[in-house]
Amino acid sequence: MSDLPLGLVGVGKIARDQHLPAIAVTSACHCVATADPYASLPDVPSYDSLTAMLDDNPGLKAVSICTPTHLRYEQARQALLRGRHVLLEKPPGATLSEVEALVALAEQQGVTLFAALHSRFAPGVSKAQQWLAQRRIHHVDIQWKEDVRVWHPGQAWIWQAGGMGVFDPGINAFSIATAILPQPFFLQQARLDVPRNCQTPIAADLTFRDENGASIGAHFDFRQQGPQTWDIHVETDGGLLSLTQGGCQLSIQGDVIVNEPEHEYAGLYAHFVELVSAQQSDVDMAPLRLVADAFLYGRREMVEAFVE
Amino acid sequence: MSDLPLGLVGVGKIARDQHLPAIAVTSACHCVATADPYASLPDVPSYDSLTAMLDDNPGLKAVSICTPTHLRYEQARQALLRGRHVLLEKPPGATLSEVEALVALAEQQGVTLFAALHSRFAPGVSKAQQWLAQRRIHHVDIQWKEDVRVWHPGQAWIWQAGGMGVFDPGINAFSIATAILPQPFFLQQARLDVPRNCQTPIAADLTFRDENGASIGAHFDFRQQGPQTWDIHVETDGGLLSLTQGGCQLSIQGDVIVNEPEHEYAGLYAHFVELVSAQQSDVDMAPLRLVADAFLYGRREMVEAFVE
Repeated sequence: MSDLPLGLVGVGKIARDQHLPAIAVTSACHCVATADPYASLPDVPSYDSLTAMLDDNPGLKAVSICTPTHLRYEQARQALLRGRHVLLEKPPGATLSEVEALVALAEQQGVTLFAALHSRFAPGVSKAQQWLAQRRIHHVDIQWKEDVRVWHPGQAWIWQAGGMGVFDPGINAFSIATAILPQPFFLQQARLDVPRNCQTPIAADLTFRDENGASIGAHFDFRQQGPQTWDIHVETDGGLLSLTQGGCQLSIQGDVIVNEPEHEYAGLYAHFVELVSAQQSDVDMAPLRLVADAFLYGRREMVEAFVE
Repeated sequence: MSDLPLGLVGVGKIARDQHLPAIAVTSACHCVATADPYASLPDVPSYDSLTAMLDDNPGLKAVSICTPTHLRYEQARQALLRGRHVLLEKPPGATLSEVEALVALAEQQGVTLFAALHSRFAPGVSKAQQWLAQRRIHHVDIQWKEDVRVWHPGQAWIWQAGGMGVFDPGINAFSIATAILPQPFFLQQARLDVPRNCQTPIAADLTFRDENGASIGAHFDFRQQGPQTWDIHVETDGGLLSLTQGGCQLSIQGDVIVNEPEHEYAGLYAHFVELVSAQQSDVDMAPLRLVADAFLYGRREMVEAFVE
């Protein structure tokens, strides 16, 4: 792959914590400019807007969009229309319709669009997927429980309409489950627990069924204290597979197969470089579609107010 | 088109009010059996289940699925797997994911799947679409207001999770708007008014924007008394187009172009016969996707309890 000069759109927490370190270890890729009206980086040309950044950097081939979700569609559209490859943070948009439109536009423009489902790049995911491809699934138990006060301090947007609440981490569970399970699965029942002072759920209990009739339970909770849980357990005709710690640890029938530190975003950028090189896009709608299904079909229960 | 012997799955209100009269006027198509555990028709062989109907009628080429939404996926899947063409009442499924899976299955099986968006067959729709294709859109105003007590008497499911509330008629407005407007459009803001004793909205105010920046307002209300309103007004560079009475009346710059009685389901079955003959499917996800977008992204306000 030749050189991929890249602009970062939105210089917030996720850009600093994850994107910049990952770009730094991706040899084909380097950050040549940033666009953010409120933030910048030392030693990198910074612009107030995406438009200004693109105008001033005709050699910039790609943009990575890390802005709040409701801004992403217009920004991605502009970048695609101006012939740039686009990496979209998750979720890839505020609504399904706008992401579908971006997919069509990227194809029309002949450039790469990558909806970055970072959890799929966790160390144990690809081996889990390979092993499960040969198995018959009996039951799946997804436990995705974390303390919102630790992971999203002061992030009021998560409780507002469109913020998705506990589905903000939950979409990571869906990203992994849709990657490793050999059959698609469909929502049968959902209960969304919504604090009385919030728009979005703080917890959710979901039941799915796959095409062979296997049941898949998912339990999301933002009120977890003590140890945090990001685990998927799959009972199969070949025994139990457990993908735990957000995909960092993989055990099959009790044997630890993978146990590595998290380095998802490095995998993400390596894949982006490959996609651009191969002139392909990678936008899997399945995880965001499952979230939308839960909002469309789920029963809401009002629970205790959330006070951070 | 050769003969299309068809089985009706679900013999409820919509089947009797709309499907049977439409089948009766469609020469290529006739109803040879029904499947419903609780209901049957005089002079037509009836079965308790879809399985029994298909087992006993190897010559039955197509099924029309008019059961409650949450049953449709399993039924459609069975019929497709057994090589039958399928017409799905709207909405085509309880969730987007299951409809996407049916699309893939129909293609794999080489049979027709038709997600029947009946409102698109209203008399004024195709002429509206043709006229708007040449125009620049400035603004769109969608008013879809009806009395739920008149149109859905005793239908408690509409207020339960998955019942969609005012989006049950609202999806008809989306079916027409996505057909006649030349650009796709995307949700910017939504307020869903949900009665405190219900799961689904009784009213909704939505703002969309199309790719050229035109704004589209949609106002859905289930509390309309007196005259009922199913109107779409489109301001363009060529003047005002009004498609009113659910698509039966079309006026352009004040001239009445179309004014015909409703006969949507006859158009639906004629199109189904054409699709089967051409070995094609027709499943446009856009209207249900817009509903899911509103549930995912909309802000809920609690309003007065609904008592029928």
